[in-house]
Amino acid sequence: MSDTNHQVRLAARPSGLPERSDWSFTEEPVPTPGPGEFTVAVSYLSLDPAMRGWMNAGASYIEPVEIGAVMRAGGVGRVSASEHPGFNVGDHVYGELGIQEHALSDGKGVIKVDPSLAPLPTFLGTLGMTGLTAYFGLLDVAGVKEGETVVVSGAAGAVGSVAGQIAKIKGARVIGIAGGREKCEWLLDDLGFDAAIDYKTDDVRGALREHAPDRVDVYFDNVGGEILDAALTRLARGARVVICGAVSQYNATDGVRGPANYLSLLVARASMIGFVIFDYAPRFGEAIGELAGWMREGVLLSREDIVEGGVSAFPDALLELFSGANIGKLVLRVGSE
Amino acid sequence: MSDTNHQVRLAARPSGLPERSDWSFTEEPVPTPGPGEFTVAVSYLSLDPAMRGWMNAGASYIEPVEIGAVMRAGGVGRVSASEHPGFNVGDHVYGELGIQEHALSDGKGVIKVDPSLAPLPTFLGTLGMTGLTAYFGLLDVAGVKEGETVVVSGAAGAVGSVAGQIAKIKGARVIGIAGGREKCEWLLDDLGFDAAIDYKTDDVRGALREHAPDRVDVYFDNVGGEILDAALTRLARGARVVICGAVSQYNATDGVRGPANYLSLLVARASMIGFVIFDYAPRFGEAIGELAGWMREGVLLSREDIVEGGVSAFPDALLELFSGANIGKLVLRVGSE
Repeated sequence: MSDTNHQVRLAARPSGLPERSDWSFTEEPVPTPGPGEFTVAVSYLSLDPAMRGWMNAGASYIEPVEIGAVMRAGGVGRVSASEHPGFNVGDHVYGELGIQEHALSDGKGVIKVDPSLAPLPTFLGTLGMTGLTAYFGLLDVAGVKEGETVVVSGAAGAVGSVAGQIAKIKGARVIGIAGGREKCEWLLDDLGFDAAIDYKTDDVRGALREHAPDRVDVYFDNVGGEILDAALTRLARGARVVICGAVSQYNATDGVRGPANYLSLLVARASMIGFVIFDYAPRFGEAIGELAGWMREGVLLSREDIVEGGVSAFPDALLELFSGANIGKLVLRVGSE
Repeated sequence: MSDTNHQVRLAARPSGLPERSDWSFTEEPVPTPGPGEFTVAVSYLSLDPAMRGWMNAGASYIEPVEIGAVMRAGGVGRVSASEHPGFNVGDHVYGELGIQEHALSDGKGVIKVDPSLAPLPTFLGTLGMTGLTAYFGLLDVAGVKEGETVVVSGAAGAVGSVAGQIAKIKGARVIGIAGGREKCEWLLDDLGFDAAIDYKTDDVRGALREHAPDRVDVYFDNVGGEILDAALTRLARGARVVICGAVSQYNATDGVRGPANYLSLLVARASMIGFVIFDYAPRFGEAIGELAGWMREGVLLSREDIVEGGVSAFPDALLELFSGANIGKLVLRVGSE
């Protein structure tokens, strides 16, 4: 890489889908670490639907990105210079590096990753935040049990694909909802889901009746909107609806569509439960160990969809998450490993 | 009473608010019990928002009332004739008696009540289904704890007024939401609520900010709609939203309005939980004992709003529940005690 650090900053708070004009592209010299600091040469950046929420003003589970700030993003990279006693040049690390080629860090929130365990992009997906979200959402929040019927929306995405596979590992019957034949075939043929529903062509409500004759014990929702409403019509008694995300709603300009069928919670004696992955941080190590073990055993497949083009490709790549173009974890390649 | 049994039957499934033409008024001879049966002279009938749901076709937590059938209703009365070994003439009973003056029963679902414990209408309210709903909803479903902030909507209604008082007994800070100054004054002056919000004149969201500066740990919802959405903006971390009812939505002709702010569950790590009171039947006796004890101690006030006019007054009386005219438990007087 050169001495220049290319960055993408938030220029304006978008209404609806983010446009190119909502971003500014800046260049700075590669930062030099001061005492207690180090610099990371970014290899891969994580692209997540949640980023859309961070672009809005107002309190949420995390502070919004300020106008003019480098866009927040998780990333993996290699320490390129260090004045920090805990990090040495050449260490591979994960942290909130931002949409840029070089990140300066004081080590806060940065962890070392072991590239012998899995390819670097996997630490942004199955062994990263999205895999951890699936793990704790399904096991701790939903408390899935053997023999239960689990439905996952956004099932071919980074979180959904891992959630469905963990449910299979735990002995559940798993139905995935995804958009398009290619995704559905992947769920059935490669991930071993018991059924797949293509929401672009199938009647989701009817397909759930067909594939979940005994109704749904756990609904793991990544999408919100119509699909959430369809799933609510099929809840088994005591069902748990895990609210992980609502990608169909993040760019709504006329307000979020609430689940009109929420009174099914009453009929089914069911719960709709929200969670934030950061709360489980003390158990991340344990979870990554178990996820890596399942990967080694071959019962958990990890798929990354890697976008080329560096940080300037970020604005268009982000939109792929909302058009449903990606399969598995969407990752932006920024530099060498 | 005469030898004639006046009845109100469901004539048509309403769209929106039930109209007089949705009912038929029939007369039959007072039934004579056969072996194992008894007849109840109905004293009071319970009027409940849930009745509106029973008038719709389709599966719910309970079968719909069939067209042509006597409208389902809980009631209290006195056994007037008996061929049943467990029930004697003169016994006071509670059961699903229906909107009629005389009910024939085989004893299924009928329990004896002790009129020395409380006035008969109280067995339809505070010591009946609505009191039990408040009791289990607040204590078991929400698991309210001392020092928590509890918000109750429909707070001057049969369920809400008991729920709020139980929350006070358990040491919570209680905010009631009700329509009109008279209801709010009752909550504050007689029931000892810490704050009351008049949704007809106050900005509910702003008032919740003012009265719940530390946010809301338990939201007990009887109304749905805009008020549910306002409450969702003020959830404390780990909050429980108990879905007890949605009286604002039962007559909606353009579909139920789902809670657009449901993603607050995620931010707050909160749960939205549905329940059905029948599941707690094995513990009804224990709960009625505790509720009656609180009434004797004077820490739980019971208020019934008694409508005169007999069964022919039922159609108009039912509408009072949806216009918010009643305070406390709405009861129809049908015959003598």
